[in-house]
Amino acid sequence: MRRKEKEIRDRALMEETLRLCAVGTLGTIGSDGYPRVKPLNFAYREGSLYFHTARVGEKMEDIRRDDRVCFNAYLPIAYVKAKTEPCEANYLFRSVTIKGRARSVEDPDEKRLALDLLMEKHQPEGGLGDYPSAKLEVVGVVRIDVEEMTGKESLGDGSLREAALKALAEGAPLPIVLER
Amino acid sequence: MRRKEKEIRDRALMEETLRLCAVGTLGTIGSDGYPRVKPLNFAYREGSLYFHTARVGEKMEDIRRDDRVCFNAYLPIAYVKAKTEPCEANYLFRSVTIKGRARSVEDPDEKRLALDLLMEKHQPEGGLGDYPSAKLEVVGVVRIDVEEMTGKESLGDGSLREAALKALAEGAPLPIVLER
Repeated sequence: MRRKEKEIRDRALMEETLRLCAVGTLGTIGSDGYPRVKPLNFAYREGSLYFHTARVGEKMEDIRRDDRVCFNAYLPIAYVKAKTEPCEANYLFRSVTIKGRARSVEDPDEKRLALDLLMEKHQPEGGLGDYPSAKLEVVGVVRIDVEEMTGKESLGDGSLREAALKALAEGAPLPIVLER
Repeated sequence: MRRKEKEIRDRALMEETLRLCAVGTLGTIGSDGYPRVKPLNFAYREGSLYFHTARVGEKMEDIRRDDRVCFNAYLPIAYVKAKTEPCEANYLFRSVTIKGRARSVEDPDEKRLALDLLMEKHQPEGGLGDYPSAKLEVVGVVRIDVEEMTGKESLGDGSLREAALKALAEGAPLPIVLER
């Protein structure tokens, strides 16, 4: 990271950011040599990031060809309006980037664990029935073994920073718009 | 795209989705051979996607080494809660993916155009002063020449779809949560 003052060093804060992001973006290398980025829902636990996908398709093909992947989750927090000149405009955010290796999960117990983590994240109140075994069989689950995790944040200064942190703590609809 | 029923074929709808997304994700190939994904603000016009960045740093280095890039913009629309079994949970979204070549923009007029497009997008009410020429000189601007643009959407059926389209039309804070 070029600008060290923006680096998040606290692993717990990175993991919290991953929890708050419903969607992240997976980067793979395509068969044509171009990078590919695809948005997906995901869940993270202890060095493993899980997502589900079709068992056939580009993501699975890319990973089989080259298991090196990148994953980014971006939490938009606020747009800071420019007041007098355009360069004052700013976006406040937190963001986590993961470098790792992707593996297709075949073990039914680990598949179930991954889906449980996804459901706990997106619908924590629970109270739902079990996965139909036919669906459990056909769904593809991928685990990214995290090799490196970095975090970046831009929260502004003074009253902007206060407003941004308050919005995050209150779970206000994000991103908010702030006036300078 | 594997599931053809999810494909957006209307170019105008793809461009509208790009306009509604404040942030997108750039995919490049890193010096270590891993793909890299980075979130950034952007503006699109007539086959060109622009973003600004530091003139030094990973993004610029990656692009100089290999100008083939991928860009994704994802508009989260709604989380559809599962009612009886977990597989009913769903995310409604629109998403646009671009494959193209990235070029560093050196022409001052095109740099200014790119920054104007960004400001028009993020603060359309305008009324701001000009860019200080010193800042215009130091900022990096990248143009992605779009080679391929694809769109994907999942809007649900019936009343879910209606509620999703209504939220989009009203500009309600997104994503909303829908009950089945």
